[in-house]
Amino acid sequence: MRTRIATDLAQQGLMQTLGVTLLEVSMGHVTLELPIGDAVSQQNGFVHAGAIASVLDSACGFAALSVMDEDSDVLAVEFKINFVAPAVGVSLRAVAEVIKSGRTITLCTARGYAVGADGALKLVAVMQGTMIRVVGSTP
Amino acid sequence: MRTRIATDLAQQGLMQTLGVTLLEVSMGHVTLELPIGDAVSQQNGFVHAGAIASVLDSACGFAALSVMDEDSDVLAVEFKINFVAPAVGVSLRAVAEVIKSGRTITLCTARGYAVGADGALKLVAVMQGTMIRVVGSTP
Amino acid sequence: MRTRIATDLAQQGLMQTLGVTLLEVSMGHVTLELPIGDAVSQQNGFVHAGAIASVLDSACGFAALSVMDEDSDVLAVEFKINFVAPAVGVSLRAVAEVIKSGRTITLCTARGYAVGADGALKLVAVMQGTMIRVVGSTP
Amino acid sequence: MRTRIATDLAQQGLMQTLGVTLLEVSMGHVTLELPIGDAVSQQNGFVHAGAIASVLDSACGFAALSVMDEDSDVLAVEFKINFVAPAVGVSLRAVAEVIKSGRTITLCTARGYAVGADGALKLVAVMQGTMIRVVGSTP
Repeated sequence: MRTRIATDLAQQGLMQTLGVTLLEVSMGHVTLELPIGDAVSQQNGFVHAGAIASVLDSACGFAALSVMDEDSDVLAVEFKINFVAPAVGVSLRAVAEVIKSGRTITLCTARGYAVGADGALKLVAVMQGTMIRVVGSTP
Repeated sequence: MRTRIATDLAQQGLMQTLGVTLLEVSMGHVTLELPIGDAVSQQNGFVHAGAIASVLDSACGFAALSVMDEDSDVLAVEFKINFVAPAVGVSLRAVAEVIKSGRTITLCTARGYAVGADGALKLVAVMQGTMIRVVGSTP
Repeated sequence: MRTRIATDLAQQGLMQTLGVTLLEVSMGHVTLELPIGDAVSQQNGFVHAGAIASVLDSACGFAALSVMDEDSDVLAVEFKINFVAPAVGVSLRAVAEVIKSGRTITLCTARGYAVGADGALKLVAVMQGTMIRVVGSTP
Repeated sequence: MRTRIATDLAQQGLMQTLGVTLLEVSMGHVTLELPIGDAVSQQNGFVHAGAIASVLDSACGFAALSVMDEDSDVLAVEFKINFVAPAVGVSLRAVAEVIKSGRTITLCTARGYAVGADGALKLVAVMQGTMIRVVGSTP
């Protein structure tokens, strides 16, 4: 399962562009990490909302994938994200979990934490999103 | 107004990383464009949902900014995005507009279109999001 | 199509409880109306956010139904609603339209307007929601 | 705190119309219950998505209120709700909690459970919503 997800992460050009790495995988749970730097900032120097959303969305997709069989793939149907504090620090940790996995549709949530130089975590964003299972490339 | 938004766009590290450009600005309306390529893909070669969300979120933020006075800035409170078709093509166009601008809170919507080699537009995503006005850096 | 939707509306106990009526139906567009009164208020006398969401959700469901064949039914997968002004007036009008209808999933948007004693409309809410097509009772 | 919330609940006409009762209150947590019956159904006899949203929204509002001082009130800015299973049973329980409470904006989540005749709980919906603090009636 971890191998499958690591391979998919390596094939996501955006995650490579942003430098995202895979921290943890277990059934229904995935944690990713985004290094914080100028490449992902908005105009005030905080992490751009879109960069946070990108990592949380990938984490949700992989969490959904972790509960499916090998020939399934997932696409994002929709997600919603609230930002509760500006993200500053060393990295942004995205912790996703599956809430309910159905035949077609899987609901996930994810939290984004800014990780400080001292390792302290601060909640910065919360996502709720829907993934759809696809077999091959046909939704 | 266009100068202010162009300057802000240039200061958003993420938008520079993704190569996003400013197409159009008018009161309450902003259009951005993202070049499609491997740098923004997901595992199937489509544009990553997070890249689409990033450009639409920036477009919403700038649309909100376009109806405010010079000393205001905006932060994303939350957004919601639905994906209605895989994004493939030459570029991704993000067209944002302000629905309602209040003293503190501004509601925006945005649509994302895949632009084909022949210039044809295909709707791929729809966003609804809330911006909060901040003065200086204090929300 | 109008007959089908009127029948469905009559079978929705909640819509009967709230006194909702069908104003207009056309392909991909449905307008419903909720009488404003104490039965649907929140603590300040405005229309309760949940009552607004209920009517907009029904309008979205019927709009989705209006573009499907006779043996289809729809269920709400999710929706997101922003409230932009307190709803006061004589009635609440819910205007829904289909943005994209796929084989399984249909994306709708809806706007809620407070209708004043003079017939003036004021935008109070905006919804973006996903419906899933079901045949019989099996999603 | 419980008295304040019970009073507010009694003043929400919609909650009275639906027969909603207050089960539990503690700092940042509120549980409400909606009796399931024809008055809140959709066309298939399940609980209408709007009724579920209404109760979860009220629960979120009260959870937000539970962490504020006495002269504050709250209004819903927006919410997003996913439906993961049809709601059937004796009642619908809405369990809300505050994720982050700021000076102006409070983020809440809520889960809706169908309660069966045997008391078993089944997850049917998940909400993520934003409340804004108002003093008097001015947001």
